[in-house]
Amino acid sequence: MTTIAPIEWTNRPTPGSPQEWIDRAAEVSAVLAADAAARDRAGTTPYAEVALLKDSGLVTLLGPAEHGGGGQDWPTAYRVIREVAKADGSIGQLLGYHYLWNWAARLVGTREQWEQVEAEAARQRWFFGGAVNPRDKDVVVQEDGDDLVFTGRKSFSTGSKVSDVTVLEGVFEGTEDHVFAIVPSDSDGLTFHDDWDNIGQRLTESGSVTLDGVRTPWASAAGYVDKTFQPRVYNTLNVPTIQLVFTHFYLGIAAGALETANTYTRAKSRPWLHGGYDSAVDEPYVIDAYGDLTAKLWAVEAFADQVAQEGQPLHDEPDSVTEQDRGEFEVRVAAVKARATEVALETAQRIFEVTGARSTASPEGLDRFWRNIRTHTLHDPVAYKRREVGRFVLTGELPQPTWYS
Amino acid sequence: MTTIAPIEWTNRPTPGSPQEWIDRAAEVSAVLAADAAARDRAGTTPYAEVALLKDSGLVTLLGPAEHGGGGQDWPTAYRVIREVAKADGSIGQLLGYHYLWNWAARLVGTREQWEQVEAEAARQRWFFGGAVNPRDKDVVVQEDGDDLVFTGRKSFSTGSKVSDVTVLEGVFEGTEDHVFAIVPSDSDGLTFHDDWDNIGQRLTESGSVTLDGVRTPWASAAGYVDKTFQPRVYNTLNVPTIQLVFTHFYLGIAAGALETANTYTRAKSRPWLHGGYDSAVDEPYVIDAYGDLTAKLWAVEAFADQVAQEGQPLHDEPDSVTEQDRGEFEVRVAAVKARATEVALETAQRIFEVTGARSTASPEGLDRFWRNIRTHTLHDPVAYKRREVGRFVLTGELPQPTWYS
Amino acid sequence: MTTIAPIEWTNRPTPGSPQEWIDRAAEVSAVLAADAAARDRAGTTPYAEVALLKDSGLVTLLGPAEHGGGGQDWPTAYRVIREVAKADGSIGQLLGYHYLWNWAARLVGTREQWEQVEAEAARQRWFFGGAVNPRDKDVVVQEDGDDLVFTGRKSFSTGSKVSDVTVLEGVFEGTEDHVFAIVPSDSDGLTFHDDWDNIGQRLTESGSVTLDGVRTPWASAAGYVDKTFQPRVYNTLNVPTIQLVFTHFYLGIAAGALETANTYTRAKSRPWLHGGYDSAVDEPYVIDAYGDLTAKLWAVEAFADQVAQEGQPLHDEPDSVTEQDRGEFEVRVAAVKARATEVALETAQRIFEVTGARSTASPEGLDRFWRNIRTHTLHDPVAYKRREVGRFVLTGELPQPTWYS
Amino acid sequence: MTTIAPIEWTNRPTPGSPQEWIDRAAEVSAVLAADAAARDRAGTTPYAEVALLKDSGLVTLLGPAEHGGGGQDWPTAYRVIREVAKADGSIGQLLGYHYLWNWAARLVGTREQWEQVEAEAARQRWFFGGAVNPRDKDVVVQEDGDDLVFTGRKSFSTGSKVSDVTVLEGVFEGTEDHVFAIVPSDSDGLTFHDDWDNIGQRLTESGSVTLDGVRTPWASAAGYVDKTFQPRVYNTLNVPTIQLVFTHFYLGIAAGALETANTYTRAKSRPWLHGGYDSAVDEPYVIDAYGDLTAKLWAVEAFADQVAQEGQPLHDEPDSVTEQDRGEFEVRVAAVKARATEVALETAQRIFEVTGARSTASPEGLDRFWRNIRTHTLHDPVAYKRREVGRFVLTGELPQPTWYS
Repeated sequence: MTTIAPIEWTNRPTPGSPQEWIDRAAEVSAVLAADAAARDRAGTTPYAEVALLKDSGLVTLLGPAEHGGGGQDWPTAYRVIREVAKADGSIGQLLGYHYLWNWAARLVGTREQWEQVEAEAARQRWFFGGAVNPRDKDVVVQEDGDDLVFTGRKSFSTGSKVSDVTVLEGVFEGTEDHVFAIVPSDSDGLTFHDDWDNIGQRLTESGSVTLDGVRTPWASAAGYVDKTFQPRVYNTLNVPTIQLVFTHFYLGIAAGALETANTYTRAKSRPWLHGGYDSAVDEPYVIDAYGDLTAKLWAVEAFADQVAQEGQPLHDEPDSVTEQDRGEFEVRVAAVKARATEVALETAQRIFEVTGARSTASPEGLDRFWRNIRTHTLHDPVAYKRREVGRFVLTGELPQPTWYS
Repeated sequence: MTTIAPIEWTNRPTPGSPQEWIDRAAEVSAVLAADAAARDRAGTTPYAEVALLKDSGLVTLLGPAEHGGGGQDWPTAYRVIREVAKADGSIGQLLGYHYLWNWAARLVGTREQWEQVEAEAARQRWFFGGAVNPRDKDVVVQEDGDDLVFTGRKSFSTGSKVSDVTVLEGVFEGTEDHVFAIVPSDSDGLTFHDDWDNIGQRLTESGSVTLDGVRTPWASAAGYVDKTFQPRVYNTLNVPTIQLVFTHFYLGIAAGALETANTYTRAKSRPWLHGGYDSAVDEPYVIDAYGDLTAKLWAVEAFADQVAQEGQPLHDEPDSVTEQDRGEFEVRVAAVKARATEVALETAQRIFEVTGARSTASPEGLDRFWRNIRTHTLHDPVAYKRREVGRFVLTGELPQPTWYS
Repeated sequence: MTTIAPIEWTNRPTPGSPQEWIDRAAEVSAVLAADAAARDRAGTTPYAEVALLKDSGLVTLLGPAEHGGGGQDWPTAYRVIREVAKADGSIGQLLGYHYLWNWAARLVGTREQWEQVEAEAARQRWFFGGAVNPRDKDVVVQEDGDDLVFTGRKSFSTGSKVSDVTVLEGVFEGTEDHVFAIVPSDSDGLTFHDDWDNIGQRLTESGSVTLDGVRTPWASAAGYVDKTFQPRVYNTLNVPTIQLVFTHFYLGIAAGALETANTYTRAKSRPWLHGGYDSAVDEPYVIDAYGDLTAKLWAVEAFADQVAQEGQPLHDEPDSVTEQDRGEFEVRVAAVKARATEVALETAQRIFEVTGARSTASPEGLDRFWRNIRTHTLHDPVAYKRREVGRFVLTGELPQPTWYS
Repeated sequence: MTTIAPIEWTNRPTPGSPQEWIDRAAEVSAVLAADAAARDRAGTTPYAEVALLKDSGLVTLLGPAEHGGGGQDWPTAYRVIREVAKADGSIGQLLGYHYLWNWAARLVGTREQWEQVEAEAARQRWFFGGAVNPRDKDVVVQEDGDDLVFTGRKSFSTGSKVSDVTVLEGVFEGTEDHVFAIVPSDSDGLTFHDDWDNIGQRLTESGSVTLDGVRTPWASAAGYVDKTFQPRVYNTLNVPTIQLVFTHFYLGIAAGALETANTYTRAKSRPWLHGGYDSAVDEPYVIDAYGDLTAKLWAVEAFADQVAQEGQPLHDEPDSVTEQDRGEFEVRVAAVKARATEVALETAQRIFEVTGARSTASPEGLDRFWRNIRTHTLHDPVAYKRREVGRFVLTGELPQPTWYS
C-alpha cells in the first residue's frame, strides 16, 4: 500500500549528526505523505510503514552506536517524531511509543538489563510495542519457578501487532506491585484483537490484547534484583518522557495540517467570487489565518524544543535525578502538552477556513489531522495538566508521580 | 435503515400552534436520533428520512392552510429545522433547503405562480430539491417554442435525488439573465450522479446533476411575465432567508452535539483516576465546559430567534421591502451566521473534552457533529460575513445583493 | 461639571411606550456622553448626573403610573440601563441599582409596604442607594421599643451618598435573620466615607458607610408581619434581578466602547502607512474586527433581551413563583451574565486595535470602558456562574438561593 | 521617589556571565518593584530609575569589554530587558530603547563611528534617548559648512529627557534621504515638551521634542562617507532588533503581571463564599487560570529566546547578512511579536479573575500591566505582523524593509 519502493536505504550511510537524522526523518515523511490520506482511509495494518521505519534506520536512533544505533539524544528523537508525524500522525505515534518502550529498559531496568536490551534492539532493529495500560489492574502476574506468567487483558496495545517485541505490564497477584518485562511479540499466549476502530490515529494498531499465560523468565522483570524492585526517581521519568512524545507528534500533525493546507490553498483554492482578489493567496483573511496559525505553531515548537533540552540532563545522569528535578520537569512538560493540544486542535480545525468548501471532499482527507489530534489529545484530560502547572506556580507543589503525571 | 415504524402519523391531527409544530419536530428528531450515527456511517440515500418528513407533516409547515399546509411563518420553520438538525444535520439541511425552494416561488415568482405551486406542494406533500448553484454559469437555457430547455451541469444538487420536484436554475443563452423553474425530479434529461462524498452532511445527496435538455413550459419561468422578468427587492431575500436556514441547522447540530455529549458524560464517562472526584459530572473542568458551551449556544440561539423575527415582516409585506430593509436584514443575518459558525465549531470540537478518550470509538459517531458543521460552514467564507457587518457599522454600506450576500 | 443645561425636561411629556422610554434614555445618554471621559477623570460626586436621571424622569420608570411613575416593566428598565451605560458605565450602574432597590420593597416587603414605598418614590422622584453587602454580618440590628437600630459598617454602599433614601440591611443581634429597611439617606448615624477609589466605575460612590445607631420604625422592616418574616420564593428573585441589571450595564458599556471607537476610527485613525489602503475604514483588519465585535455584542444583547422577557412573568405573578421557576431563571441569568462578561471584556480590550496608538492618549479616555467592565465583572466570580449552568444542564440541579446565586 | 538606597552598587564586581547579568537585572527589578505602582501613579520623570540602570551597570551590558562594557550579546540583553520590565514596563522599555539606540551606531554607522560611540558610551555609562519617528518627514536637515542642522518636531522622543545623548533622525531638505546623528541631549535647540500623557508606559518620557536648529558635525552623520550614505542590508536590522525589544518587554510585563497576581492571590484573595474551598489557591478555576496563563507565557518566552538566538549570527557577521537572512529573521520576529502581544494582553486582562473584586482598588495598581501592554502593543498594527508571516509561508515573500517591517 505504501510507496516505499523509490528509496533504496540499504546502501546509504547511517546519519551522523542530529540534523542528518532530522533530514532522514524528512525523507521518510515524504514517502509517507505521498498516500497518507489513502492509507488513512484504508486503515490497513501498517506493516509496510514499520518496515520503512526500520529500513531507514529511524528505529535505532536512540540505540547505542557501538551496536549500530544512532547514539542520539531525546531532543533529536523528538524532532524526528515530529517530522514523521507531519506526514502521518499514526506512524509518528508508533515511532514515538517505540522510542519510549525501547528506553523503558533504561528507565526501569538494571544496568545489565538495559545494556542488553539496547544492544539487541539496535543490532536487530527491533520495533517495540507495548501492552501497558496501567489505569486498571487488568493483568495479573504469577510466579512459576524461574518464570513469570502474565494473564489478563489490556484494552490498548499500541503497535504490538506490528512489533518484534512487546513490553508487558502487570501486577503481582495479591499485591500493588507492578512489573514490566519485554517479550517477543509472537509469544505464546499473546492474542491481538484488531479492535481499534476509532476516529483518529487509525493506523496505530491500538486494539486490545489478551495475555493468556504469557511466560517470561524472572530475569527479564525490569528493575528487579533478587525479586525485589529497586526504585529510583528516574523510574518516574517515564511519564514526562512519553508525554513529551505526545506533544511532539501533536505538533507534527499540526505542522502537517498547515503545510498540506498551504499546498491546497495555493494549488486549488479559488479566490472568493465577490472578494475583489485575483487569487486565494491574496485574500486578507487567508493571509491572516496563515500568519496567525503559523505564529502559534512556531511558539509551541520553540517551547517543545526548549523543554526537550531541559529533560536531557536528567537522562544523562539518571542516578542523580531528584524529586525536585523530576517534578519541575513534569510541570514544564505538562505546560507544553497543554499548549500543543490547544494549538494543534485550533490548527486542524481552522485549516478548512483557508482551503474552502471543496476541500471537504473525502478523498482529500484533510479531516484526518483533526481526527488524529482530537483522538490522542484525550489520552488523559488536559485540564489536569493545567492543574499541575497552576498548583506548582501557586504553591510550589510538585505533581505526585503517577502513570499520568 | 431508519426506525420509523414506531410512530403512526396518519391518524394524528396536524399541529396547530407553533409550539405544536416544534413538538412534532422533536418527535421526528427523536426518531432520527435513534440510529443517526449508524445512518451517517452507512451513507445510504435518505428515502426513509424524507418519507418521515412527509409523513409527519413537517414538509408542509409553511404551506397554505387552505390546501392542507401548516400556515406557519419562518420563525417557526427555523425552529423546526433546528430541532430536526439536533438529531441529524443532513436531514435538518434537507428540510431547510426544502422550505427555501418551496418558498422560491414566492420570492421570485408571480402571485399566480406561487399560489399554484404552494397549493400543489401542500396538497401533495412535495419534497423539494434544487439544482441551483449560481456561482458558475454552468447551465444554459434556450427557448423552444413555448418551452424552455435547460442544458448543462450543476456541481451540487442538494436533495434532488430524493425529491418530488426540483428547482432548476440557468442562464438564458448569450445573456446574464438567470431563470428559475420548478420541474418534476424525474423529468427526462435529469441525471443525478451520486458523487457527493464529503466528510460531513453525508446524507444530503448534494452530488452533481446533469441537465440534458430538460424541458419545461415558459409559463413555469418564475417571475417572468411576457418573457420579461419582473424584479422586486423581495427577490433578493433569497440570500438572507437561506443563510438563516444555514444558521439554524448549525445551531441544531451544535445543540445535538451538546445533548449527545451530555448523555455520554452521564452514562459512560469515568471520573479521572487521579482527580479526586467520584463522578465525571462532579469534575470542575467538566462542569465548567458544559456551563461555558451552554451559555455560548443559548446566546446565539436567542440571537437567531431574534433575527428570524426581524425577517418576518419582510415576508409578510413582500412588495414593500426596501433596499434598506433588505440590507439591514442581511447584515443581521450575516452577524448571526458568523456567531453560529464559531460557536458550533467550538462546541463540536470541545464536546470530546467532556466525554473523554473512549468516546472517540468510531461506532459512537461523536465526530459527525464536527464533520457536519465543518463541512457546511465553508459554504461561503465566513470572513465575508464579518466584512458585511463591519462595513455596515463603520460606513452604513449595505451588502450588495449577490447569491451570497 | 455635567452639561445638563441644553435640555429643558420640565415641560416635556412623560414617555408612554417602551420605545419612548428608550428614546428618553438615549437623550440622557447623549448628555452624559458629551463629557464622560472628563467626568471619569475628575471623579467628582455625581450630583448633577443623578439630578439628570431625576429630571428626565428615568428614575420613575418602574413606578406606578397612578402616582406619576412610568408603569413600565423590567425588560424596558433593562434596555434603559443599557442605554445610559453606553455613555457612562457608572451612571448606568447607579440607575440599575436604584431600580433594584426601589423594587426591593416589592421583592421583600408586604403589599402594604411596597405600595406605599412605590407611591412615595414615584411622587417624589426618590433616588435609591443601598447599604447592602450581605457577604458579611457586619451590621447588627437591635430592637428598641417600636424602633429598629442599625449599627455597624458596610464596605460598599453604592449610590447612597447621592440618594434620597437608602436600603439598609443587617442581622438581628444573635440570630441569622436578615432585615431590610428603607431610611432617609440623611438619617442620623449614617456616615459615608468617600473611600471608593477603584480603577473603574469611579462615579458610583461605592465607598463604605458607618451605621452608628440608625433608627427606623419596626413597621419599615420589609416583609415582617408581627415581627416575623414572611418568606416567599419571590424574595429570592433579588439575585437574578440584580445580576441581570449587571448584565445590561456591561452590555451598555461594551456598546458604548464600540460606538466610541467607531467614531474615533472614522474621524481620527490613519490608515497604516504601509498597508496600501487610503482610509482606516478600508483596512481589512479594521473591518473584520468591527464585524466580529459587533456580531458578538448583538448575540449577547439578543440573549439578554430574551432572558429579561423570561423573567417578566415571575415579576407579574410574584406569589406563584416556584423554586423551579426561580432556579431555571437564575440559570439563564447566570448564562447571560457569563456571556456578557466575556464579550464586554473582549470588546473593551480590542477596540484599541482599531483606533490605534494615538488613541491611548489619556484625555481620550478610551480605557475607561475596560476599567469599568473589568472592575464590576469581578463582583462575584464568573466561574461560579458557569458552574450554575453546567450543573443544571448535567444534573438538573438548581442553584441554591444565596446572595449571589 | 524610587527606593534605590538599599543597594550599594559601586563596590560590587561587574557581572561576567549571561546568568550573572540576568541576576543583576533581577536585583534591579526587585528595587523597582518595591514601589512600582506608586511611581506609576505619580508619573514623575524617572531620573532615579535611570540612575539605577546606570549604577547597576545594566546600561553598558552590550558595550565593549575593553572600555568597561559588559561585552554581552543580544540574547542576554533581551533577557535583561524582560527582567526589568517585570517590575516596571516603562523602565524596561527605556532600557530596551537605550540598547537599540546605542547599537544604532553599529547598525547604520561606519566602523570608525560605532567603535568611537560604543567606547565613549561604555566609559561614561551614557543613557541613550531618541528622537526618531520616521513615519513622518517632520524634521528637515540642512547643511551648514561642516555641520548639519536639524529643524522640526518629533511627536515622540522616548527617554531623551532623561538621557545623556539622543539619536536624532531627519530628512535632508528636498530629498528622501534620512540621516541619523547622536547629539548630547542638552544640545542647544532641543526642547522637550513633557506632553506624554497616555494611559500606559507612563514613565517613558515619550513626549514630543522640538528641534530648533540643532547642530552637529557632518562627521557624526551615521554611515555617511564623503557625504554619501553607504547602505548595507545590516542597516535594516534595526526593525527586527527593536521589534524584538518590544517583544521582550511585553513578555516581561506579562510575567510581572502574573507574578504580582500570584502574590496577591496567595496573600489577599479570599476563597469564594459559596465555593466550598478553604483557600483561594484551592479553587479549581483559580488553579486552572494560573496553569493556563503560565503555559501560554512559557511558550512565548521560549519562542522569544529562540528568535533572539537566531538573530545573533546576523549581529556577529553584519557584513554578510543577505536579504534572505534579514527577511526570514524579520518574519520570525513578526511572529513572536504577534504571539507576545496576544498572550500579554490576555494575561494582563485575566489576572483580575484570580485576584478578585477588591484587587481593583486603585492603590494596588494591578491595572498598570494592562495599560502598559495595551499602550505599547499599538506601536504598529499587529495585523501587519501576521500579514508578514502569512505572506511568507504562502508565497515565500520577504517583508519589504521599512521602518516597521
